[in-house]
Amino acid sequence: MSNRVVRKISRADAEVIRALGEQGVATIHEAQGRTGVLRRYMRPIYPSARVAGSAMTVLCPAGDNLMIHAAVEVCEPGDVLIVAPSLESTHGMFGELLATSCRAHGVAGLVIDAGVRDVTDITAMNFPVWSKAISAEGTMKSGAGSVNVEIVCAGAVVCPGDVIVGDQDGVVIVKREAATEVARLGAERISREEKSRERLRAGELGLDFYGLRKKLNELGIDYVDEE
Amino acid sequence: MSNRVVRKISRADAEVIRALGEQGVATIHEAQGRTGVLRRYMRPIYPSARVAGSAMTVLCPAGDNLMIHAAVEVCEPGDVLIVAPSLESTHGMFGELLATSCRAHGVAGLVIDAGVRDVTDITAMNFPVWSKAISAEGTMKSGAGSVNVEIVCAGAVVCPGDVIVGDQDGVVIVKREAATEVARLGAERISREEKSRERLRAGELGLDFYGLRKKLNELGIDYVDEE
Amino acid sequence: MSNRVVRKISRADAEVIRALGEQGVATIHEAQGRTGVLRRYMRPIYPSARVAGSAMTVLCPAGDNLMIHAAVEVCEPGDVLIVAPSLESTHGMFGELLATSCRAHGVAGLVIDAGVRDVTDITAMNFPVWSKAISAEGTMKSGAGSVNVEIVCAGAVVCPGDVIVGDQDGVVIVKREAATEVARLGAERISREEKSRERLRAGELGLDFYGLRKKLNELGIDYVDEE
Amino acid sequence: MSNRVVRKISRADAEVIRALGEQGVATIHEAQGRTGVLRRYMRPIYPSARVAGSAMTVLCPAGDNLMIHAAVEVCEPGDVLIVAPSLESTHGMFGELLATSCRAHGVAGLVIDAGVRDVTDITAMNFPVWSKAISAEGTMKSGAGSVNVEIVCAGAVVCPGDVIVGDQDGVVIVKREAATEVARLGAERISREEKSRERLRAGELGLDFYGLRKKLNELGIDYVDEE
Amino acid sequence: MSNRVVRKISRADAEVIRALGEQGVATIHEAQGRTGVLRRYMRPIYPSARVAGSAMTVLCPAGDNLMIHAAVEVCEPGDVLIVAPSLESTHGMFGELLATSCRAHGVAGLVIDAGVRDVTDITAMNFPVWSKAISAEGTMKSGAGSVNVEIVCAGAVVCPGDVIVGDQDGVVIVKREAATEVARLGAERISREEKSRERLRAGELGLDFYGLRKKLNELGIDYVDEE
Amino acid sequence: MSNRVVRKISRADAEVIRALGEQGVATIHEAQGRTGVLRRYMRPIYPSARVAGSAMTVLCPAGDNLMIHAAVEVCEPGDVLIVAPSLESTHGMFGELLATSCRAHGVAGLVIDAGVRDVTDITAMNFPVWSKAISAEGTMKSGAGSVNVEIVCAGAVVCPGDVIVGDQDGVVIVKREAATEVARLGAERISREEKSRERLRAGELGLDFYGLRKKLNELGIDYVDEE
Repeated sequence: MSNRVVRKISRADAEVIRALGEQGVATIHEAQGRTGVLRRYMRPIYPSARVAGSAMTVLCPAGDNLMIHAAVEVCEPGDVLIVAPSLESTHGMFGELLATSCRAHGVAGLVIDAGVRDVTDITAMNFPVWSKAISAEGTMKSGAGSVNVEIVCAGAVVCPGDVIVGDQDGVVIVKREAATEVARLGAERISREEKSRERLRAGELGLDFYGLRKKLNELGIDYVDEE
Repeated sequence: MSNRVVRKISRADAEVIRALGEQGVATIHEAQGRTGVLRRYMRPIYPSARVAGSAMTVLCPAGDNLMIHAAVEVCEPGDVLIVAPSLESTHGMFGELLATSCRAHGVAGLVIDAGVRDVTDITAMNFPVWSKAISAEGTMKSGAGSVNVEIVCAGAVVCPGDVIVGDQDGVVIVKREAATEVARLGAERISREEKSRERLRAGELGLDFYGLRKKLNELGIDYVDEE
Repeated sequence: MSNRVVRKISRADAEVIRALGEQGVATIHEAQGRTGVLRRYMRPIYPSARVAGSAMTVLCPAGDNLMIHAAVEVCEPGDVLIVAPSLESTHGMFGELLATSCRAHGVAGLVIDAGVRDVTDITAMNFPVWSKAISAEGTMKSGAGSVNVEIVCAGAVVCPGDVIVGDQDGVVIVKREAATEVARLGAERISREEKSRERLRAGELGLDFYGLRKKLNELGIDYVDEE
Repeated sequence: MSNRVVRKISRADAEVIRALGEQGVATIHEAQGRTGVLRRYMRPIYPSARVAGSAMTVLCPAGDNLMIHAAVEVCEPGDVLIVAPSLESTHGMFGELLATSCRAHGVAGLVIDAGVRDVTDITAMNFPVWSKAISAEGTMKSGAGSVNVEIVCAGAVVCPGDVIVGDQDGVVIVKREAATEVARLGAERISREEKSRERLRAGELGLDFYGLRKKLNELGIDYVDEE
Repeated sequence: MSNRVVRKISRADAEVIRALGEQGVATIHEAQGRTGVLRRYMRPIYPSARVAGSAMTVLCPAGDNLMIHAAVEVCEPGDVLIVAPSLESTHGMFGELLATSCRAHGVAGLVIDAGVRDVTDITAMNFPVWSKAISAEGTMKSGAGSVNVEIVCAGAVVCPGDVIVGDQDGVVIVKREAATEVARLGAERISREEKSRERLRAGELGLDFYGLRKKLNELGIDYVDEE
Repeated sequence: MSNRVVRKISRADAEVIRALGEQGVATIHEAQGRTGVLRRYMRPIYPSARVAGSAMTVLCPAGDNLMIHAAVEVCEPGDVLIVAPSLESTHGMFGELLATSCRAHGVAGLVIDAGVRDVTDITAMNFPVWSKAISAEGTMKSGAGSVNVEIVCAGAVVCPGDVIVGDQDGVVIVKREAATEVARLGAERISREEKSRERLRAGELGLDFYGLRKKLNELGIDYVDEE
C-alpha cells in the first residue's frame, strides 16, 4: 500500500486514557488478559518517566526521522508518538530538537523501537521516552514512510488511536475500542488489590489470603521443620 | 527429591551479617578468594538499593510465584528471599503486593533470577530488589517447588541461611559457616584499604604504594619521554 | 612493538576542550561528520556523569590494572583515562581506590572497555566513568601493557591527547589536531540549533522549518483525512 | 476477543507459493519494498532448511504447545505452522513427536518465536524449522490460545493464509492478497539479476553496470594512486 | 576450602551411562522432572557432537587451563571434562593440543562454560565439545583451582561422577546416585514415545492421542469455520 | 579527511600470506603476542570457510554498499575485502551478486562488521565470508566512504595491505610490515606444537610435558585420593 499520512484518527475517551495512565502497565497487562506489552527491551530513558495517551503511529526507514516531523503536524495535545523503523535500527533517531517540537505541539511522549540521543536534555525537559537504545549516532530526513497506519512496534500491533501507557515496567498498548472495558477491569483489579494490600500490609499471608494452602497440599509439598 | 518447605534454618550471627552488609559486595568477593558473586546480569532496580540478610531460598517453576508466598510464611525479619526458577524465565514473577507482604513480615529484600514488575511502587517502598529483568508479563500461583533447599541462582550455589549481600556492584553469597571468618577478612581488607585510601588521597602513587615499579621493570616496560 | 609508557603527550587547547565538553557527544558526532562515537554499550555509571579532557590511553591485559596505575603517574590535571584491554574482559578492573588516586592527581574521568566496581562509592565521589559492564569480579596488578600509545577502545581509534567527551549519550573521540575545527563547527551547529529551538518551541513545524514538505511530495506520500 | 480455532482459511495460489519459495527470502524482501522480514534472531536449525507455504497461525501461552496440536488438525498439506507465544519464551515448545505428527499431516515446516528441541531427530527427518532458540526445557499442554487469527511473530504481523518463505537468510511473510504481485515482481528481479550475474561474472564492474561512477563523482570521492 | 585434586571418584554404571547417552538430553530432562539442563548458551561446536560420560569436574581461574591439564591425569576412559571458570570468561581456554591429550587418555568430551579454539581441528578429530563461546583469545597455565570438587557450570550444580549427556539440544546433568532410576524412567518415556510416534506417524491427531479435546472444550475455545 | 579511493597498496609477500593462512587464526594470535583478533561475534557463514589475503579496506555508511563496488575495481586477485560501516549496522550489505563480482575479480573473501544475505548461494559458491549478522534486510548504493584507508573493524585497526586470516576460530589481522616475522614465529610455534602433539598423542601428560607439577605444588594444591 502506498505511503500516506492520515490526518484524523479516532481516540479513546480522555478520562479513560487518564484512568489507564494511573493504573499503570502491569495492571493493564493483567486486565486485558496478559496481552499488549511491548518487548521488555523498551526502557524509559529516566526513572520517573510516565505517560498515557493516544497512539500517533509512525512507520519510517531505519535511521530516518522525516516521518516523525510529518507526524508532529497531525498530532493533538496528549497524543503519544510511537515509532517503528521498517528495518532494525539502534541509531539515535530522536533528539532534543524534536522533543522541543513535540512539546510545543502538546505531544505527551515518545515510544520508539530504535535509539534516541540528547538524553540529558530530554530528561531535563521531563519529556518521557521509551526506547530500545541510547545512541549518539545520527540520522537523516529523507526517507518515505507513513503516519497513522497500523504498525508493529517492539512485538505489538499498534493502530492509530490505541491507548499507550508507559511507566518503569515498560509499555503496554490498549486497543482503542477496548479501552473503556480495560479501564473498568483495571479499576476493579486496582480495587481488589487495594483490599489485598491492606490485608497483606497487616500481616495476613498470601497463602491464606489467596487460599493457596490447599494448592500446596494437592501438589504434595511436604513441610518439614528442618533438614 | 520431593518438593518441600523447610521451616527452620540456621542463620549467621546478626552482627556478622550487619558487618558484611557494610563491607559491600566487592570487598566480600575479595575477602573470600574471589568467589560467590552472582552473574553480573543481576542488577538492582534502583540505584540506592542495598541489603544484607540470611538467604531464604525459593525454587519454583518458571513464571510461577506460589512458592514465594510459601516462603514468606517461614521467613524471619531480616531474611532475604532468593528465588531461582527451575527453567529460564524473564517474566515479572514479583510485584508490589508481594513486596508489601514481604515488608509486613520483615523480609529485607529480594534477589530473583527472573523478572520483576511494579518497579515504581517497589522503589517508592524502598524495598531492595536485584533481578535479571524488568517485565510486566504476569505469572501464576499454581506450580510446585521448594523453600529452603540448596539452589543455584544466577551461577552460584545458595544454601538456606547463607548470607546475601547486595549493592550497586551486584550480589554476593557468603556461606553461612564461613560468614564470621569472611567478615573478619573483609574488615582487615577495609582497614588496609582505609590506610591505602589516605595515602592515595594524599597523592602517593599506586606505583609506589603497592611497590609496582619493580614489576614494571621486570616486565621490560620502557619509559620514553615522547614518541 | 615493545610495551612502553610515554611520559609527555600533546594536548588540545584547554579552552577548546572545555567548549567541546559543553557541546556534548551528539553535537560533536555531527560536527565531525558522524564519526568518533564509541560503541553504545559504553554507558555512564550514574546519570549526571559528564566529562571532557585529553586522552591518556592505557592498553592492558584483560583483568589487570597495573598499567592504569602507571598511567596515573604521567597524567596531568584534566586528563581522561581511556582503557582498552587487549583481550575482551568484563571484570571490575577499576574501583574506588583507583578513583581516589585519580582524583588526587586531577584525572577528570575514566572510559573503560571492561568492567568497574565500587560503583556506589565512585558515584558518591562524583567521579565520572563510562564502562561496558559493572562487575565485582576482581583483577590483578601483574601484566604488561602500554600507556599513551594508539589504542582501539570500543570500536574507535584513540591516540594520546585526543579529546574525549562523555555524557548520557555515550562517548565521542575528537582527534587532537581536529579539535579546534570540530569545536568551531560544533559551535556553529549549537548556534543554528538555538535558532531552530526557538522557532520549534514557538510551534513552527519541522516540516516548514527544514523545508521538508517538498521532500514528502517528491516521495509521493499521500495525505488523507482518514482511513 | 475469545480464543478460537478457525478451520478454513484462504490460501494463495499453489503455483505462486512455489515460485516465491524458489525466489527466496532476500529477493522477496526486496520485491515487496523491503518489508515482511522476521527479526534476524529467527534462524534455521540446519543449514539446508528451506520452505514455502501458507501460514497456519498459532497463538499460545509461553511454554505451552496445546494449541499447536489443535492447529495440526486444521492444516492442509503444504501449510507452514507459525507460532507466537503471547509472552516471551525460549523453552523447547516443539519436538520430534510434534514434527512426526506434522509430517503425517503434510505440514511443510515450522516457524516459532520460541525454542525447539530434538534438533538432531528433526534434522534427520528433514523437517525445516526456524526458531529463536534451541532448548531442551520442556513445556505443557494446558493453556488456551487460538489458531488462524492474526498474530505478531518475531516483529511481523502474520494473517492465516499469508505466504511464509524461509531459507538461510531467515523468514519473510508475503500478504496473501499480494502474493501474486510479489511473485511477479520477484520474478522480474530474478530475471534482472540473472543478467547482472552474467555480466558481473564476466568481469564487468558494478561501478559500470549500475552506473555508480557518476554517484562517486557527485559525492566528491577522490581517487588517488597511493597514500 | 583449599584447592585440591581428588584422584578417585565414584561413577555410575557404564551401561546406565550408555543408555542415558542414547536417550538424549531432552528425554533425560523430562525423565528427571525437568531439571539438570545447562543454560542454553552452551552449544556444540559441530552438529553431530554427542557424548555421555562421568563428570570429571574442573574449577579454574578465568582464562587459565592449568587445572584442565591436572584433570587429564586423573581421568579414566569415558570420562567427560566439565570446566567452570571461577569468574566469567569467554577466552579460548581449550584447543587442539589439549584435545589430543584428552583423546590419548580416553576422555570422551568436554563441556566448558567459557571459550574454545582450534575448532576446525577439534571437529576433524570428532572430539565433542560444548562451549559458551568460540574465541582464538589465548590463556595461561598458572592459576590455582581444583579437580573433582562440586562446581556450578552454566547454571547447574555438577558433582564428580555425575553423568553428563550432550547432544544438539544442549547438555544435561544426571546425579550419579539417580542415574539408574533416571535411565529407567527415560527408557519408559522412550518406550511410550515410540508408541506415540507410530500412532502420530499413522496420522492420529495429538488432540485424540493425548485426549486434549476435553481440555480445549474446558478452556472455552470456540471452533469456527471461517472468520 | 576527505573520502577517497586509494588505487595502489603495498602487500605482504604472497608466500608469507599463504604460510599464515595455513597456520590459522589461533596460532597467529599467539605468534604476535595475543593481539589482532577481531571481536568473536565475527563468525563464518559456513563451517569450512577459510581465507588468507591482503586487506582491501572499505569504510562505508551503515547499510550502503556503494563503496564495496568501488573497492572491487581496485583489488587484485587474492585480496580480502574488509568492510566497516561508520555507524553500527546489521543489515545485509553484501549478497550473491557482489560475491559473483568479487569472484570474477579474484577477491578471496569478505570480512564485514555488519550483515550479509544470500547465504545459501554464497556458500554454494564457496566464497568465504565472516560477518556480524545474517540478515535479508537490504541496503543502498548511494553513500560516500573510502577504500584503502585505515579502518577499525570489529575492534581491530586494519590498514590496507595488512594480512587477514580467517577460519572457524574467527579472524585475525597481521600488520603488513610484521607479516614475515609473525609467519616465522608462527612456524616455530607450529613446529613446537607438532612435537608436543606427538608426545601428548603418545600419552605423555601436559603436567609432565609442560613441567606444570612444580607450579601445582607452589600453588599449594593438595592431592587427595578421595573426598
